[in-house]
Amino acid sequence: MGYLDRIAECNAHDLDGFLPFGIGEAQPGWVRPRFARRLADYPEAFAVDERAVRTATALASFQDRTETVAAVLRGLSENGELGRWRDEAYPVGSSLFGPHLMSMDRSAIPFFGVRAYGVHVNGYVRQGERLLMWIGRRADDRPTWPGMLDNFVAGGQPAGIGLMENVIKEAAEEAGVPKELAAAARAVGAVSYCQETEEGLKPDTMYCYDLELPTSFVPENRDGEIAEFHLWPVERVMETVAETREFKFNCNLVCIDFFVRHGLIDPESNDYLDIVHGLRRGNSGNARAAPVL
Amino acid sequence: MGYLDRIAECNAHDLDGFLPFGIGEAQPGWVRPRFARRLADYPEAFAVDERAVRTATALASFQDRTETVAAVLRGLSENGELGRWRDEAYPVGSSLFGPHLMSMDRSAIPFFGVRAYGVHVNGYVRQGERLLMWIGRRADDRPTWPGMLDNFVAGGQPAGIGLMENVIKEAAEEAGVPKELAAAARAVGAVSYCQETEEGLKPDTMYCYDLELPTSFVPENRDGEIAEFHLWPVERVMETVAETREFKFNCNLVCIDFFVRHGLIDPESNDYLDIVHGLRRGNSGNARAAPVL
Repeated sequence: MGYLDRIAECNAHDLDGFLPFGIGEAQPGWVRPRFARRLADYPEAFAVDERAVRTATALASFQDRTETVAAVLRGLSENGELGRWRDEAYPVGSSLFGPHLMSMDRSAIPFFGVRAYGVHVNGYVRQGERLLMWIGRRADDRPTWPGMLDNFVAGGQPAGIGLMENVIKEAAEEAGVPKELAAAARAVGAVSYCQETEEGLKPDTMYCYDLELPTSFVPENRDGEIAEFHLWPVERVMETVAETREFKFNCNLVCIDFFVRHGLIDPESNDYLDIVHGLRRGNSGNARAAPVL
Repeated sequence: MGYLDRIAECNAHDLDGFLPFGIGEAQPGWVRPRFARRLADYPEAFAVDERAVRTATALASFQDRTETVAAVLRGLSENGELGRWRDEAYPVGSSLFGPHLMSMDRSAIPFFGVRAYGVHVNGYVRQGERLLMWIGRRADDRPTWPGMLDNFVAGGQPAGIGLMENVIKEAAEEAGVPKELAAAARAVGAVSYCQETEEGLKPDTMYCYDLELPTSFVPENRDGEIAEFHLWPVERVMETVAETREFKFNCNLVCIDFFVRHGLIDPESNDYLDIVHGLRRGNSGNARAAPVL
């Protein structure tokens, strides 16, 4: 059963290779010991010992933490020690909608193992009894996941804008979806996972949307992220997810959730419950970022 | 937010009040210490100490365990110490589809805290843009949950018959659904919970099905379980679930899962992820019965 392989790949991690990242009493993330040692060079921002990294006690407010840490991280980014600075403020705390402890540039989020959030839209078409899905292929010049298959529309969720607002914005940029059509997307649940990467830990929660598109609609990318769109029979999408790693890793989970909700996966085996529960591994995405192992 | 209250009610339990129920190396359930002391009267079936109840070591096969334990439990049932004997064999083991360690009459399952499985069908009707759900009210003479609201069709899942076979059987008995119509029910996921009851612990996994019904269809109960059916606008169902305890407790979860999948719950608050993850508390329904706390 390839679906369980895709789920396992998204959840491969070992917390023994990480130190807790704390802010006051809360633990919003995890850092690699090597990165922790680097952060120890900046005592104005971080208190580091063998067991944990914490923001400096003197940083008592959201604003203090955000500004002092940003100054350090921007320097590391310019020095090539983080990814490219994204200028997108991601929330750090126990939940997407707050209260938040600080915000942090998107580029640093995986280094601190902080839960990130995103919106993913399944764009589908009904032709009589047939169900088809619009699938994107990422441009070859993308810094992340070049050439891989992607959900119809997907984007990270920055602090301070609504989920639907983000869906509408991303749908316009990535697929040229008119606002009134994008606004018909239905929130149908969420999937979550936790993956270890070279950078650090990536606990992630993706809000899933279904958007039924008219047969006359043809997506058109506007931001350069997607090189081409394919309208595939759902059976081909199912086979691609099960048998290949052609999709960007986490998009597989959004597709599998779509297959479950649309009655396309046979429940008559033990795998079914492993799939249904495997799509929402770890904790709720609220509470602390650490997944329940 | 009443949905979270309904989810919390289904998950109220304290494992400190239970002893593990073991079979060999596996732990398929939990028993109350008082019940464990009673089982100690039957050393041919159970090995009991202060820390656990196990099936007797001499019972080395599925059949040995099933028969020897059944003889004890039938006596307890006749003596009024269990519920009424149901003559429905429920699987005991790490998963619904096996391998199984033994089977046990349905009446004893909650006393042993063994995970039970069921099928629940949302019967709904579309009238233009309106979505309506068929809701049953249980007969006042039922031994369990008399007079309470129920899903369109629902039933426990015995060992040895398929899920869809069970859906078709229950749909015919409970709502007079013709076989060819019931067979159109779509498996759309599963919800799980773990509740402490007077009898013991009830970890439960419900397979959820959606069945779109023609407007001309009117359900008709045949087994006496349902006194009447109502066709309610989904908004009324939502309000009833959120604001009252009129539904049989676990049917609320199946309704809430329906609301999520049909885009009826606003995702723009922290509650949303708590709801989505709260519907699948505990473990996968495979593996051991103990919920992850």
